[in-house]
Order: sequence, then C-alpha cells, then structure tokens
Amino acid sequence: MTLYFERVALIGLGLIGSSLSRVMQREGLTKHIAGYARSAATCDRAVEIGLVDSIHGTAADAVRNADLVILCSPVGSYGAIAKEIGPALNPGAIVTDVGSVKGAVVRDVCPFMPDGVHFIPGHPIAGTEQSGPDSGFAELFANRWCILTPPPGSDPQAVAKLEAFWQACGSHVDVMTPEHHDLVLAITSHLPHLIAYNIVSTAADLEEVTNSEVIKYSAGGFRDFTRIAASDPTMWRDVFLNNKDAVLEMLGRFSEDLSALQRAIRWGDGDALFSLFSRSREIRRGIIAAGQDTASPDFGRGARKT
Amino acid sequence: MTLYFERVALIGLGLIGSSLSRVMQREGLTKHIAGYARSAATCDRAVEIGLVDSIHGTAADAVRNADLVILCSPVGSYGAIAKEIGPALNPGAIVTDVGSVKGAVVRDVCPFMPDGVHFIPGHPIAGTEQSGPDSGFAELFANRWCILTPPPGSDPQAVAKLEAFWQACGSHVDVMTPEHHDLVLAITSHLPHLIAYNIVSTAADLEEVTNSEVIKYSAGGFRDFTRIAASDPTMWRDVFLNNKDAVLEMLGRFSEDLSALQRAIRWGDGDALFSLFSRSREIRRGIIAAGQDTASPDFGRGARKT
Repeated sequence: MTLYFERVALIGLGLIGSSLSRVMQREGLTKHIAGYARSAATCDRAVEIGLVDSIHGTAADAVRNADLVILCSPVGSYGAIAKEIGPALNPGAIVTDVGSVKGAVVRDVCPFMPDGVHFIPGHPIAGTEQSGPDSGFAELFANRWCILTPPPGSDPQAVAKLEAFWQACGSHVDVMTPEHHDLVLAITSHLPHLIAYNIVSTAADLEEVTNSEVIKYSAGGFRDFTRIAASDPTMWRDVFLNNKDAVLEMLGRFSEDLSALQRAIRWGDGDALFSLFSRSREIRRGIIAAGQDTASPDFGRGARKT
Repeated sequence: MTLYFERVALIGLGLIGSSLSRVMQREGLTKHIAGYARSAATCDRAVEIGLVDSIHGTAADAVRNADLVILCSPVGSYGAIAKEIGPALNPGAIVTDVGSVKGAVVRDVCPFMPDGVHFIPGHPIAGTEQSGPDSGFAELFANRWCILTPPPGSDPQAVAKLEAFWQACGSHVDVMTPEHHDLVLAITSHLPHLIAYNIVSTAADLEEVTNSEVIKYSAGGFRDFTRIAASDPTMWRDVFLNNKDAVLEMLGRFSEDLSALQRAIRWGDGDALFSLFSRSREIRRGIIAAGQDTASPDFGRGARKT
C-alpha cells in the first residue's frame, strides 16, 4: 500500500470511474475519493455501493482540495467541466482524464487550466461493453497500456507521479504526442467500433433475413461484433466527433482495401484472397504474446476443450 | 448411448472433423469411424490421438461400407471428392457435409451422387479460430445451430435420422433452402470474417502506425477482429469463391451504410451517430438471451469482476 494522492476527485462514475475507485481502494492509493456524476441516480448508486467517500452536487465542489482530478465522463463534456472546475483547482494539483481522444481534450481543457495546475491527458486502453457505476472492477487496468500525452513543458515530476499511479493500478505506461495517440487509436479502437456498429445496423435493416435469424445464427462470427457495438453510445458519439480527421483517414484506407477484396471476390481471384487471409495470424500471435488477449480458442467462451 | 450409424466416414480431419469424432466417441453414436485426410501429417496425427478407428489412403476407401459420410474439408474440394467417392458409396448411405455455403455444395456434389444415396447438405454454425486435428473438442456443437438443406424430394426418414444425429451432438437443427442459408450466413458469418480480415490487413499496411503499436494497443477493440481473422485461409477463400452473390449483396449494403456513417462523422452529425449507436444493444441482448454468447463482460476474458 503506497499513498499516491491525499484526495482524488472522480468526475464521472461509469465503467472507468468506478473501476478506478475499486483499484484505488484495493491498493490504498488515496485517503479520500470525492465523486461527481451528472445524473442523480449515478450519484446515489455510487454512494450505495461504496465507490466514493464523498459525493458532490457540482464538479467544482468535487475537485476542491483534490491533488488528483480525473475526468471520467464522455469527452464531449470536458470543455464545460474544465471551465467550471478551473477556478476551484488547488495549485499543484494534477488534472488528467481517461478519454479515448487526446487532441480534442488538449484543445478543450487546456484553456481553462490555471497556472500551477498540471494538466496531463491520459488514456487507459481498457474497457468492457458495459457502462455505469456497477460495471467497474479493480482488475480492469491490469496488464493494459495507459497512454499519457503531457503537453510540452509539463513538469517531469508531475508526469512521473501520474505514471507511477497508473502502474499502481496495474497498467503499463507509454508517453506520446496527442496527434500520434489519435492516429494509433483510430485504427486500434475507433475504426473497429465504427465497423462493428455499422455491421450490426446493416444486419438489423435486412428484409430477407429476420433479426431472429441474425440472432440464432450469430455464432458464425457476427456475435463478436455485437459485443463491441453494445458499448456506450454517448461515449462513442463523442469519440467520432472529436477524432474526425484520423478516423476519416483510417476509414478511407479501410474502404479502399475492402473494395480490392470485393473485386477479388467478384472476379474469383482465389490466390489474392488466400494471400490476404494468410497475413493475419501473425498479428494475432503477436497480440497473444504481448499479453493483450487470451490464447484460448474462441476467447475461452463457453465449452472448453477437454 | 444410442447407436445412430454403424460406420461413419469423416472426409477431412480438421477442427470440425476432429470435433465430430470426439463427440461421436463420447456419445457412442457409431461403432466405427473411418477417416481420410489429404495430408499425410494429418492422417498420422489423427491415428496418434485416436480420432479414427481406421485411416484410409483415399476418400473412396474411407467411405466404403459407411452408412454416414461427412465431408469436412474446405468446400472447394467437394466436387472432386464427390466424383471420387460416388461409385464407392453404399445404397442407403447418407452423405452430408459441414460446409459454410450450401448452394455451391448442391451444385458440386449432387451430380455425383448415385441413386439410392441420400445427399443432405448441412452446416453446423460452430467453430473457433483454430484448425487442424488437434483443435477439435466434443463440446463444439453444444447449444449451437446446425442447418440442413435437404434437396426437394429427400427421404424424410434420412433427414430425420441426420437431424437426430446432430441433436445427439448437442445441436439444435433447422431446415431451410440452400439459397436462404447462403443469404443468412453471408451476413452472420461471411461478411464479419471479410471485414475482420480486411481491417487487420489495413492496420498491417500503415506507415505512420507500426505493427508493434497495433499489437500493444489492441485491447481497444482491434484484438477481437484478429481472432476471427486468424481462421483458416483455405476454408475462407473457398467460402468467398462459392458464395459470391450473397456476399457481394451484403457487402454492398454494408458499404452504403458505412458511407452514411462516414458522412455523419465528416459533418459532425452527433444525433445521427448517437441514434445509430443506440440500436445495437437490443440485438446483443437477444444473442445472449438465445444462449449464443456469454453475458460476461468482455467475453469473460482475463480478469473477472470481483
């Protein structure tokens, strides 16, 4: 048990906020967790299940006297929150976030950060398809990567302290620019979600195939996409609105490649299909070797190999 | 233990063939499993791990005296196999398959089936990303659907017997036309695989983002696609070559829908994004309620909720 911060304020108590609360409590990383959430139901539930030591009616009240503030709400809400909490922040406090985009966060939050406050954007690459205060668990960040994008001129000690905090939560930490983060995440996270949402929608709209057939026969591959597409719609709307350029760039490449595949199917070019399909196993093996997915067949779902 | 067939011939001993062997042995569904596989290494391994009671140098030898023959090789190989085994089949034998397309199978196999042999195409909607004789397990078909597409005029008793066999393997059974099967599977299985292969390929080709970054930060969604894209390239080449029309139709719809999403992102239409993203949870809930996926967050991978 190492105390990293005297008082941590969680602004937003959904999947990530509640998971942070759980791991901070388990590891004893702070003495006091102050919480704020927009909805009264979330606030009540957070108190009920012991996510917070104190709950506050406004974000400004929640951050008062905190030495670490973590924004855990959808990224579209950050600008207004930053404006509100700015005057209430203690000098020396670290303000960070967990948003899936970083360039827009810098743009929206920086202008409201007073001198003497360390604003260090962050993004833990971890999650599930569930949301809300009940969905959090202490192990969410274990062996996952957390990316920090400190602005030029950030205090190295503050960055090191936040890095150590995320390591105490179980994560590995990398540092990069917001621009590179947004490009990397566009391909490893944003485009996969967009495609998953899209295919579920395409399937739901078919006339010749009923939704009940789509559901019954989903074990052929479709069901995997529905998990990702069950993620929080508000969070993902904000991601796409705030990482437009990188997502459109990756989407353009994806569509070009898909057109080439489509052409190979139309012309019956089996060699092209085989050669493209043979490339993927290596990346899968790399992901398993890097500890970022299970080696069990079918993600270890359901019936196991005897 | 109910004996369904005296002698079953498995043509192909990969994931599905070896899983069928395991479940037939566990349930005592036959007295003898005769096996054939194209590669000598697979044949040797099948004997070594007890998948077959006899192994044969040709498919024709393997099917002799069998009352059930199951084609478990990639669908592109069926025509040649059917031509070879036709003369060796016993009158009254049932010939079926496990291929992911059905129209092309009818086209390729029917012409070679002698009078008195019951050809009833089938497709168990079950699998993992692994392949080969070691990848099979007896539980693969449990609670999954198996679709049969008996040609018009099929013997109802033969169909009923095959249906009972698949139920004894743990599956639910549905009967439909090959055309409808190919349309349904194009959306629930073939298009998901195509998209997964495509995004992995797009990611691998990027210049600005390294493969090692794609691997490290894959937990944001990408890793899920790499599982499906690690499936057997030969099998999937044959699927796309043999279900061209339905796949191109579904792909056309998918691309249209994706263009609409792309436009919503470009123009910052948050309401359109939110409304589309909000549709998917219901289908996910349906899949879980139908027992076709786990309700555990993140497929129950890795760290569990405490």
